[in-house]
Formats: sequence, structure tokens, C-alpha cells
Amino acid sequence: MTAEVFEMKLSKIGRNLKSSLIRDLLRYATLPGAISFGGGAPDPETFPRKELSELAKEVIEEDYDFVLQYIPTEGDVELKKEFIKLLKDIYGIDDVNEDNLLFTTGSQQALDILGRIFLDDESYVIVERPSYLGALNAFYTAFPKFITIPLESDGIDINYLEGVLKDLDRRGEIDKLKFIYVVPNFHNPAGVTMSLEKRKALIELAEEYDVFIVEDDPYGALAFDENPPESIFKMAGKDRVILLNTFSKILAPGLRLGVIIADKDIVRKAVMAKQSADLCSSGLTQRLVARFLQRYDIMDYIKPTVEVYKKKRDAMIEALERHLRPLGARWNKPGGGLFLWMELPQGYDTMEMLDIAKEKLVFYIPGSAFLVESNGCHSMRLSFCLPPVEKIYEGVERLADVVKIYKEKKGL
Amino acid sequence: MTAEVFEMKLSKIGRNLKSSLIRDLLRYATLPGAISFGGGAPDPETFPRKELSELAKEVIEEDYDFVLQYIPTEGDVELKKEFIKLLKDIYGIDDVNEDNLLFTTGSQQALDILGRIFLDDESYVIVERPSYLGALNAFYTAFPKFITIPLESDGIDINYLEGVLKDLDRRGEIDKLKFIYVVPNFHNPAGVTMSLEKRKALIELAEEYDVFIVEDDPYGALAFDENPPESIFKMAGKDRVILLNTFSKILAPGLRLGVIIADKDIVRKAVMAKQSADLCSSGLTQRLVARFLQRYDIMDYIKPTVEVYKKKRDAMIEALERHLRPLGARWNKPGGGLFLWMELPQGYDTMEMLDIAKEKLVFYIPGSAFLVESNGCHSMRLSFCLPPVEKIYEGVERLADVVKIYKEKKGL
Repeated sequence: MTAEVFEMKLSKIGRNLKSSLIRDLLRYATLPGAISFGGGAPDPETFPRKELSELAKEVIEEDYDFVLQYIPTEGDVELKKEFIKLLKDIYGIDDVNEDNLLFTTGSQQALDILGRIFLDDESYVIVERPSYLGALNAFYTAFPKFITIPLESDGIDINYLEGVLKDLDRRGEIDKLKFIYVVPNFHNPAGVTMSLEKRKALIELAEEYDVFIVEDDPYGALAFDENPPESIFKMAGKDRVILLNTFSKILAPGLRLGVIIADKDIVRKAVMAKQSADLCSSGLTQRLVARFLQRYDIMDYIKPTVEVYKKKRDAMIEALERHLRPLGARWNKPGGGLFLWMELPQGYDTMEMLDIAKEKLVFYIPGSAFLVESNGCHSMRLSFCLPPVEKIYEGVERLADVVKIYKEKKGL
Repeated sequence: MTAEVFEMKLSKIGRNLKSSLIRDLLRYATLPGAISFGGGAPDPETFPRKELSELAKEVIEEDYDFVLQYIPTEGDVELKKEFIKLLKDIYGIDDVNEDNLLFTTGSQQALDILGRIFLDDESYVIVERPSYLGALNAFYTAFPKFITIPLESDGIDINYLEGVLKDLDRRGEIDKLKFIYVVPNFHNPAGVTMSLEKRKALIELAEEYDVFIVEDDPYGALAFDENPPESIFKMAGKDRVILLNTFSKILAPGLRLGVIIADKDIVRKAVMAKQSADLCSSGLTQRLVARFLQRYDIMDYIKPTVEVYKKKRDAMIEALERHLRPLGARWNKPGGGLFLWMELPQGYDTMEMLDIAKEKLVFYIPGSAFLVESNGCHSMRLSFCLPPVEKIYEGVERLADVVKIYKEKKGL
């Protein structure tokens, strides 16, 4: 088949798929001697490998007719029971039952499923600016119209959002707006947390314009200083909010276990979409996590992990103060999670600057990767979760060198 | 949100999702005392639980920084190496390298990804009649036009297929035909195997009209009598054929591990589609299977499994001869796999007859579930893999009762 015919055989999605920048970057980031602030992969030393390896042996031996078999698309009932308790512990949510839960192959599949069941090319979807890249990618396969709302240091710009909603309503298009997607806690990539006031205002707007909120919360349990404000789902209920969670950051991403918490009618649709997507997620990893939750207090268990990340954040902030402040850079101090967002002065193009970073063997994700229209951008996402503390110091020094070289080269 | 607004918020996919008949049936099939010829779940006693439990412990302990972490979307390189050897052993395929492979979350995800990257609502896709339900579901989410080709006892009706291709070509629409989807070995649901002659004729037609063949082969290794004819992929090459395989039937479905074997340009697109679908499949189950393949000869290992299924097939055929032959039923004798296809005389509606089957606690899948236009249909799929031999005898007796009651009731 010629390349021309091949191109013609592809669908609109197939033709539009582009390799992700992060993917390509992560390849460089594994070069010997490289220091990566790129990916959001947790520190593997935080994984409870001893416990998980014992439990894996146990569940395969004892529950082999479940864990090695096809299981219902909805997921493991034992895990549902444990997760319902966890929802109460973490969020104080107590009105959720089994019909409100669907376990997915990582949070990414939850995003993909929401895109499938809600979005068409006629649809509008509201996202923050910047926004989580994986969500943009997942939603993008339905070709909706993205409306992006600036993110401030205390979360989404509510006034701007209100203006957008009013405008859609005036134009008679508000019904085509399917949901507002937010990452309220320790935002990826921006590191900011939405204030309680803004959460309340967001709920009010969503009620007024009768639109769903998708609350994606992979990082909420990783609070360094104080816990984030009350969950939007907890305040507004499942008639208004779809909550996404995952075991990737509090246990291990390799288990590929995310979860949709929503009204039963939404879960029912999501189950059917998942059925055609992959039939079911592995019963092995689901039962494994169920047993872990039965035997150990996961919230207790992640305390040392959170301490590790906190130390890494502090190391990064300290190093940035020393090496990047003199160069005019600004950043936020995230209260938890894995990421901070740094802005260089106007004139810098962090995408273009990557060529120098590659030479210096230090990696970051250019801010434009998190924008719907990814033009030149002077921001970057820095992840502090993976490198050890001494590598964070060294990496930030390298980054300062990169900025200096770029500055010189561009005459900035 | 009112039900009306909710409906409006759904996408075209979301509105069209219907619960699968098989899913609902499987719920009944777990009633105490029920005998199910419904699902295609393998016999859990065939799973190598001892070996897998030891290996799971080992890989989590030793390779924790891989198996519990995010891994590249393409999959585990160690598993790729082992699978390349296996391809040579099973099919004699020796021109495949790592760039030609993508591991997926079960074969179902492979089907879903192919649907995404190839099919639009303008597209044509050719499937057999009957066809694997999971493939129809996966392709259906892109809303293509299905063209169904009758299945004969030696595979797809080649003359009919040729007529369809000629017609599409004459109408100038052949470019919109994306692929021909076939299950050549021990077909699900029909149990038939495509002859070597038909495989060659299919390849010739695909070459002439420049269209891909998707060769889905979950059951080829489960041959009871003689091995199936040479693989279409092996004969026509990766420029023409996309081969799908899975560990669900030769190892365990709970591992959720399928694989796409294709030209590197197709794999590249599939990798990007998978990235937005679920980032990656579990490194744990991939490395676990890699180790299993390193330590054990899987083709040797499944011999007892194949013997078990063969005995079950023989038991079912024997029982059918005794109890269903007198009622005018006809069936094929599958040379392998998990399913046989039974036709009752005209006038029977196997969907309607299910109500009686539920009362008698015996389950099958009505043939209409495997048709694009699922009108009344006098066929059914019988799966012989899960119930023990004595339950097969008992279940077929119950089935004969069901047919008799239906016959009486309808005055047939």
C-alpha cells in the first residue's frame, strides 16, 4: 500500500494523531546522566513493593478464579467496598454506593470515556489554561470546541468563566456545553489549588447554567502543608459533579487503576463505553489493591511519601531562588502534588530553548504542551517527584545555565 | 439535572450505547444451579496459578521500578522479545521486530484502537456474518457502514465478497472501505475455520482492491485435531494484514493482554491512539507474562488445556446428537476453540426462547447478538469451555427441554 493510500485509509482521528511532545522528551530523559523534571512519574522507592509482592502471590493463589479470569466491566466488588470507605476517609463523602463507581485502566481511561460519552464535534468543553495534557488529548479525539479559562493563583478565573457561560447562553449554545473540567488540588501543570470561595462560585455557575463539573483529583492526598479545601463533589453532589480519582499517585501507576465516581446513570453509560474499549480492567490489580486497603491504612502509608515529595519541593524552591531568581524567573510554591509552574520573562520560548536543555541533559515540559493553542510560550512545568534531592539541586543549576545560554544567544 | 437535559448532554456515542445482551445474560448465568453455555470465559482450572503467583511475587520484588511504574505506551521490551520468538513458534512468522508490536489491554482494546484510527461514519468495513460481538461493538462507536459477508463451513463466502468489492469499486467507493475483519481459526461465534484456498483468495482480493485485512486469532493455538491452515499474515505480510493475538485464551484473560502485530506505520498510529485511551497497559502483567514465557514452554503448557476443551467439545457434540438431533437442530463440529454454532429449524426465535431457558437455568447466546441487523434468528452460540463435562451433559438435556417447551408453545 502506498503512503498516499494509507493516509486515505485512516480516520479523521487516525490522521490527526500526533506523537506527544512529552513522550518524545521522556525518551531523551533516559539518556545516561540526564536529570529530568519532565514526567510525572512517582518515585519508585515510595512503592510498597514488599507488601504488594506478598499480596500478589496470595491473591493469585487463592482467588485465581477471579483475578485471572474476565471480571465484570464495573470492577471488583471487594475493591468497591474498600474504596467507598476510603472516599469517606479522604473526602468525607458518604452517599456513594457500588452503582456510583467504575474502575478504569488508569485515570486516563476515565478521561477518555468521559470524552466518548459526552463530546461530539458540535460540543463545547471548558478547560483551564494551562490544563492537564492527558485530558486535552483524550477529549480531543471527539473534536469538540475547547474554551479555555485562565488559571489564577487560587484557581480558575471565575469572572472570566461567568462571562463565557453568559455568552454561550446568549448565543443559545449553552446546551452544547457538556462539562467544565478542573483539577482543583495541586494542579497539573500549574501547581495551584482552587480556593473554597471559587469552588462554591464554580458550583453556583454550574447549577445556574445546568452543566456538569468534572473534578479530577489525582493529587489531593499529597498535601504538604495543609489539606486542600472541601471537594467540589462533596459540596455539590453527584447530580452535578463527576469525580475522578486514581491509585497511581498514592500507591503505584503500574497497577493502572483509576476510578469514576458519579451519578449511576453516568456510570451506566461509562460501563458500556468501557465494555467496548477493553471489556474490563485487570481483576488481578483490582483485587491486589482491595487486599492492600484491607490490610493497611493507605492514608498512613503515604505519609512518608508525602514527606519525601515535600522535601523535594523545598529543595527545588531553594535551588530556584538561588539560580533562577536572578534571571527574572517566577514560580508558585505548590502546597502539594508533583509539579510547579515557572515563568521566564517575556521573550523566552521554552519550546525553542529545549534544544539547549537537551545538550545540557536537563529536561522540563514547555508550557505550550498544556495549551489548546500551543504557540510560543515562556512557561514550563517542573516536576520534582522523581529525581533525588541532590539531583534536583544539580538539575536546577543546569537549567539556569540553559536559560543563560538562551538569553545570550537571543540577546534578551 | 433532568433526564431530558442529561440525554442532551450525551454525545452520539453516549446516546447510542446499549447494554450488551451477553452482559445481562452473564448475570443470570451466575444464579445458583445455572449451567451456562453463554460466555467465552476459559476454565479457571487451566490457569497456571502456581507459576503465575510465584512469578508475580518475584517481578514485583525485583523489577518494582518497572512493573509498578508508568511504562512506555508501546509495552514491555522484554515481553516483545519473548513474543517475537512465540510468533515464530506458532505461525512461523520471522520478519517482525519490536516496531511491529503493540501490547493492548486485552484484544478488545486492539479492536477499539483499529476502529479509532481507521473508521469514520463515512467508512465501510467488511465483517463476517455472524461476527464477533466485541469487534462489532468496538467498530460501531465510529458509526461506519457495515457490510456483512456470509460465513460458510470453510470460512467467508469469497464469491459474495468479490461481488461486494466489485460493486464498491464500480460506485467509486472502494477507498472508503478500510478493512476486512475476519476470525479465520475456530471462529467466534461460528466455530468454523477458513480453508487455505479461501485464505489465498481473500489475500488476492485484498491486493486487487488495495484494502487491509484484520486477522483476529485468539483461538488458533487451541486446535483439537489438526493445526489450522497457514496464517493470512504469514502469507500476505504486514503491508496487507494486521494480526491480532491475545494471552486471554492461552494463559489467562485477567492479565488483560492483547497484541497488535502490524506494519510500523500502523503501530505508530495505534500507539498514539492508545496513549490517549489509557497511557499504557500494566507493566506488572506484561513483565509477568514475559517471565512466564522465559521459564516455561507455553505451547507445551497449553496441551492439557487443549485436551480439556477437546473432551468438552466431544461431550457437547455427543449430548447434542442424543437430545437435539431429534428436534431438527444442526451444528458444526469445531476443530478447536471454545464455541459451536447451532441452528434450530425455521420458526424458532432463540432470543424469544431465552425466557424459557432462564426458567430452566441453562444459558446460551442467541445468534442475533452476532449480527449487525439483529432481527429474529433461529441460531445460537454454545460455548463448551467453562462447564465441567457432566454439567455439559446436563445442560444440553435442559436445552432440549427448553426447545421442546418452546416448540409446543408456538405450535411448531
